[in-house]
Amino acid sequence: MLTFVGLGLYSAKDITVRGFEAVKSADIVYFEEYTSSLGGCDRLTLEEVFGRKIYPLSREEIENEPEKILLHATSYNVLLLTGGDPMIATTHVDLRLRAYDRGIRTNIIHAPSIFTVVPGITGLSSYKFGKTATISFPYRDKAESISDLPYDTIKQNRSHGLHTLLLLDITHERQMTIKDALEILETLETRHGEGLMKDLIFVGIARAGSEDMVVKAGGMKTLMEFDFGTPLHVLVAVGDLHFMEEEALCKFAGLERDL
Amino acid sequence: MLTFVGLGLYSAKDITVRGFEAVKSADIVYFEEYTSSLGGCDRLTLEEVFGRKIYPLSREEIENEPEKILLHATSYNVLLLTGGDPMIATTHVDLRLRAYDRGIRTNIIHAPSIFTVVPGITGLSSYKFGKTATISFPYRDKAESISDLPYDTIKQNRSHGLHTLLLLDITHERQMTIKDALEILETLETRHGEGLMKDLIFVGIARAGSEDMVVKAGGMKTLMEFDFGTPLHVLVAVGDLHFMEEEALCKFAGLERDL
Repeated sequence: MLTFVGLGLYSAKDITVRGFEAVKSADIVYFEEYTSSLGGCDRLTLEEVFGRKIYPLSREEIENEPEKILLHATSYNVLLLTGGDPMIATTHVDLRLRAYDRGIRTNIIHAPSIFTVVPGITGLSSYKFGKTATISFPYRDKAESISDLPYDTIKQNRSHGLHTLLLLDITHERQMTIKDALEILETLETRHGEGLMKDLIFVGIARAGSEDMVVKAGGMKTLMEFDFGTPLHVLVAVGDLHFMEEEALCKFAGLERDL
Repeated sequence: MLTFVGLGLYSAKDITVRGFEAVKSADIVYFEEYTSSLGGCDRLTLEEVFGRKIYPLSREEIENEPEKILLHATSYNVLLLTGGDPMIATTHVDLRLRAYDRGIRTNIIHAPSIFTVVPGITGLSSYKFGKTATISFPYRDKAESISDLPYDTIKQNRSHGLHTLLLLDITHERQMTIKDALEILETLETRHGEGLMKDLIFVGIARAGSEDMVVKAGGMKTLMEFDFGTPLHVLVAVGDLHFMEEEALCKFAGLERDL
C-alpha cells in the first residue's frame, strides 16, 4: 500500500491528525521536498516531531526510479510525505498511476494547500479564481526566454473579472521572490505593450501559514518597493472586486484605496 | 482573540495537529455546521473526540447576531470550528472583518478543502480549473427559477479548455445529489439548446475523503444512472484532458473511453 500524505504549508503541525497517525503506523516513510517546499521545517525536524526515521527522496528519484518505491509498496505499508496537499504535483499523480498498474492500493491524506489558503488569507472569494499560472525563472536569465503564459492567463482571467493565483518558481538554487516575479511581469508588459498591468492590483503573500506571514496589496510599483522578507512568496493578480473582497484587502492587506 | 479553525472534509481526524491543539487550549469553542457540512461526524462526536464542550452556532446566529461571539472574543480566546477550510464561506470573512473593526485579533488555522481535494482525488490538474459554480435547488422547484450561472460558467471555462468545480446545494431540509444536479443542468440545456452537455464528461464524487468515497466519470446519462449512495456529493464538468488526466479518470474514476 502506498499512502500520499500532505504536510500542509508551514510547520510539522500542519499535517492532519489522520496524517499524523498514518506516519506513526507506516512501515517506511519517505519525504519528497522538491515539488513543494515546506516553509518552516526540514526532514530532521519532522523526524524529531514525528519520532521516527524519515527517508529523503528527490523529485528525480520519484520520476526516474519509481520502481524502488513501488517494490517496497508491494510488501510494506509505504508513506510519502510532501509539502502542501500531496496531489497537486503531477509527479505524484504519475506515481499513483504506476502503483495502480502494479495492483498496489493507494490512499491520499489531504492537507491545506496554497490553492485554498490564499483565498482564505486575502479574503478573495474562492469562487472567483480563474486558471492558475506559474511564473518561472527565464532560461539563462534571458528576457526573450520568458514565457507568455502568466501574462496570457492574467489577461484571460481578468477579461472575465477573475483573480489569478500566481505560483512562483522554486529551483534547487533559488526561490523566486515577489519582486522577481513582478520584474518578469514587467518585462512581459513591455513585450506586449497592452497596459494590462497599469491598473492591476496585486496581493503578495510571504510565508503563508506562518506566525510571521506578510500580506500586502497594491499596484505593481508599491509591491516592488515593499519588503516581504524571506520566501516562500506567492502572488495574486486581482480581478473585479466585490465590496467585501475590497474591504478585506484594505483591512488585512493594507490596500490603500478610496472606497 | 478569534480563531477560525477548519475541520477538513470528513471525520474529526481531518483537523490539523495545530488546529487540534488550538481546540484544546481555547476558552470557548463554537461549531458552525451550516455553511459546510462535515460528512462523517456531528457536534457530539467532536465533543467526544476533542474531550470538551462545543457550542453549536447556526449560520443565522453568526450573520444576524455576531455581537455575542465578538463580545466573548474581546475577553476570551474564542474558537470557531467549521467544515472544510474555515475561510471559504463569506459569512466567516464578514465575521473576521467585524472582529477587525472592534480591534479583536483573528487567526486562521486552515484545513483540507473541497477545492483542493477534488483535483487530488480525480487526478485533474489544479492548474486547469476555471471559475467555480454552485448548483442551487430551484426556488419552489420551478424550472423557470433555475439560475443560468452554472451553465454559463461551464460554457466559459470549457471555451478555454478548463474544468469546472460544481458545488451542490445544502439546505436545512435537503442535500443535493449528483442526480439532482444533472437534472438541473439538463433543464438548462433544454432552455439553451446549445448542445453544451452533449459530449461533456462529468466526474461525480460522493463522500469525498471518507473510507467509502465513490468517484465515477462519464457522460451525463451514465452518471444519472449510477448509484453514488448518500451525500455529500460534488461534481466536475471536465474541460480539455491532458493524457495523464485522461489516464487518471480511466483508472481512478472508471471512465470508459478509447485512449
